[in-house]
Amino acid sequence: MAEHIEFDQAHLTLREVTEALENGRFVHVRRQLQDMEPEDIAHLLEASPRKSRNVLWQLTDPEDYGEILDELSEDVKDALVSKMAPKRLAEATEGMDTDDLAYVLRSLPDGLSREILSQMDNVDRLRVEMALSYPEDTAGGLMNTDFVTIRGDVDVDVVLRYLRMKGELPQATDALYVIDEESKLIGHLSLSSLLTSQPDIRICDIMEDADEAIQVDAKDSDVASLFERRNWVSAPVVNAEQHLLGRITIDDVVDVIREDVEHSMMSLAGMDDEEDTFAPVMKSARKRSIWLGANVLAALAAASVSNMFETTLEQMASIAVLMTIVPSMGGVAGNQTIALVIRGLALGHIGDSNKRELLLKEAAVGLLNGCLWALLIGGIVVLWKGNWLLGGIISAAMLANLTLAGIAGVTIPILLKKMKIDPALAGGMALTTVTDVIGLFVFLGLATIFIA
Amino acid sequence: MAEHIEFDQAHLTLREVTEALENGRFVHVRRQLQDMEPEDIAHLLEASPRKSRNVLWQLTDPEDYGEILDELSEDVKDALVSKMAPKRLAEATEGMDTDDLAYVLRSLPDGLSREILSQMDNVDRLRVEMALSYPEDTAGGLMNTDFVTIRGDVDVDVVLRYLRMKGELPQATDALYVIDEESKLIGHLSLSSLLTSQPDIRICDIMEDADEAIQVDAKDSDVASLFERRNWVSAPVVNAEQHLLGRITIDDVVDVIREDVEHSMMSLAGMDDEEDTFAPVMKSARKRSIWLGANVLAALAAASVSNMFETTLEQMASIAVLMTIVPSMGGVAGNQTIALVIRGLALGHIGDSNKRELLLKEAAVGLLNGCLWALLIGGIVVLWKGNWLLGGIISAAMLANLTLAGIAGVTIPILLKKMKIDPALAGGMALTTVTDVIGLFVFLGLATIFIA
Repeated sequence: MAEHIEFDQAHLTLREVTEALENGRFVHVRRQLQDMEPEDIAHLLEASPRKSRNVLWQLTDPEDYGEILDELSEDVKDALVSKMAPKRLAEATEGMDTDDLAYVLRSLPDGLSREILSQMDNVDRLRVEMALSYPEDTAGGLMNTDFVTIRGDVDVDVVLRYLRMKGELPQATDALYVIDEESKLIGHLSLSSLLTSQPDIRICDIMEDADEAIQVDAKDSDVASLFERRNWVSAPVVNAEQHLLGRITIDDVVDVIREDVEHSMMSLAGMDDEEDTFAPVMKSARKRSIWLGANVLAALAAASVSNMFETTLEQMASIAVLMTIVPSMGGVAGNQTIALVIRGLALGHIGDSNKRELLLKEAAVGLLNGCLWALLIGGIVVLWKGNWLLGGIISAAMLANLTLAGIAGVTIPILLKKMKIDPALAGGMALTTVTDVIGLFVFLGLATIFIA
Repeated sequence: MAEHIEFDQAHLTLREVTEALENGRFVHVRRQLQDMEPEDIAHLLEASPRKSRNVLWQLTDPEDYGEILDELSEDVKDALVSKMAPKRLAEATEGMDTDDLAYVLRSLPDGLSREILSQMDNVDRLRVEMALSYPEDTAGGLMNTDFVTIRGDVDVDVVLRYLRMKGELPQATDALYVIDEESKLIGHLSLSSLLTSQPDIRICDIMEDADEAIQVDAKDSDVASLFERRNWVSAPVVNAEQHLLGRITIDDVVDVIREDVEHSMMSLAGMDDEEDTFAPVMKSARKRSIWLGANVLAALAAASVSNMFETTLEQMASIAVLMTIVPSMGGVAGNQTIALVIRGLALGHIGDSNKRELLLKEAAVGLLNGCLWALLIGGIVVLWKGNWLLGGIISAAMLANLTLAGIAGVTIPILLKKMKIDPALAGGMALTTVTDVIGLFVFLGLATIFIA
């Protein structure tokens, strides 16, 4: 049962904390926060409305600031950091991993981050500056520089004695890196192998080759997919000359995986995936209005199509009543296809060699469902409006629009990707515009020809 | 550069393989497959249209079948397994981890999985049967049973000699579990501590407490969030009496995290997250038609609203032309909110204590964007149709519908969750129905009152 209490802790505490803050019992809250792990405080902050978030931050032990900031999402982190004094921030970030510190510093104004860097000792500053010099979405931006290197020509016993002398290993160390006299990576030795080998065996006889080391400029999503496929816990990062630069650990990779999938999900709905659940109203409204603006254009395009058929609509109001059904079904069917294709593109399952099969398959699915719903809705319309011709017209439009939705659902994201536009961000809107405009055009066009 | 070739390998090979298969060069393909890692073959199979997938499977070395099956998504795995002879499947699954084997067996018909189990030796069969006895979405379904246990009253040197004798540790072992004479978990010792401690120190002096062990009935998504927050590589699983039952490793947790987020993304678009990109047309069409059927009801509900105002539509066709704009904007705004709320619910950021704040915030965002787009679209309509009244009516409807969209976007998923209905699956459709129906009703209702 201990576990269940654990899981709900953040929420129990949130309720308690909210009540305590309302009653001004700040000392009580401060004591509670001291008992919590930094990652749980981070979770509590993410789940807190903005006012209590700021109070909580004030009540948190500054010693924990660094670790908490590293666990926060970008928008929440930036809002808190922007209110801190540089000196306090420099103190808070002392002793952090270089990759985590780089994450905290990355969004600060230039002057501020330079001020913080100037308060660090030389070795640390160089390390962080190196981390900051790599783009955030590459292996270089993900890696940290705390790893243990050994030489290949010593034996197991020497390494064991060296580690005992060291006294502690960096977090998530599952392997030691074997380098030559030029600091080039030649292999790695897992802690498992080290522990299960006889003391007199030489390292180079039990180490594994370094042929899967990650290049420093590799894309973070590629790194994530390698970790996922190879079930790695950590991996070394090298430059083109095979010099060992750093180490990527699974906890940072998990963040990349979550962010990648969340990005697809949020983008498909027209949202920024870094958006804070409790962002300021003005900021949220501004961010979202861009997407709404794009939809205004889409909605006006659809209205212009209806406008072309104004005389038809005037002659028979039933046509106006029914005209929203075909675009609605096309939008839903197309969004099903587009979700499948965007996931497939993200996973690397869709490429030049199989896109034709996918197009044919989705068109066939659209055609099949088109037949089904054309018959059903056609039947409903005949019964409802007592007009066979209208039923036939809506059936034909439905069939055409669902087939088109399948085709557009495959081609639009693939084309956008070719044009280097994020398919998750622009795909859904582009698709709905197509299915709305074409759906209305076919239905109203057929109605004009056969009825008006 | 080695890395970049690596990343594209699956695709290069897919194209090569497709060509080779078309030219009947099966021997060539078989040889290529032998050089690939099981996880890369799994990726290749996922990315292959169904015909080539079956041929590839025939050409794959049966020795790799078990590992490949474990890496495949459910639909793809089930399709391949259903065509295999039980004897072959039993051979293929020999020596697999119990949790992975349970994943492969779980979807088989009862008789078949019993047949396979009967071919295993007693110890293995008991282990797998135990794994199968836990629900798939709990810690019990995720764990495997290969872990190393030690006693607390021995010293480091004894453990080192024991491990050397053992000769190999299970995959992703980062800690040994310390148990008492009743097999109860009392602590764990990380390999790091073991390596950095002096040989004569007693284990119980350097081990960490077992107070964060995972209960066997914990939900898999709760396990995943614990791993994410605590940056664990593996964790022990115990029953209510604290008996050690198994071990969960980060690679299985990564799958849970990916599946959870993918589930939200795919469900929001009305898709099954296990759907194979190259599923058979009939199967896809059937799965998707359920969602399309739900949308037919939503579309008919909207049409019924328009139908109530048929006489108004007859009097002024411009109203029909414009009537799709308000529901369209409401749907987009509502889907933005719902994506935010579904992510927040999944991350555990939204609960009873903060839902009021969230509702107020989203209503305010809706109101703010409602004002903006009410003014803009009202203006456009006045310029386009030269009708001030019509512009005013669409403005009022827009304002009402965007505010409603914000409110419904928060309340619908929270209510669904309370009713134990998956908010990602039903939320989007329920929301669009509300924004469509209310959007049309307000716009057409105002038009009827003021114009008709």
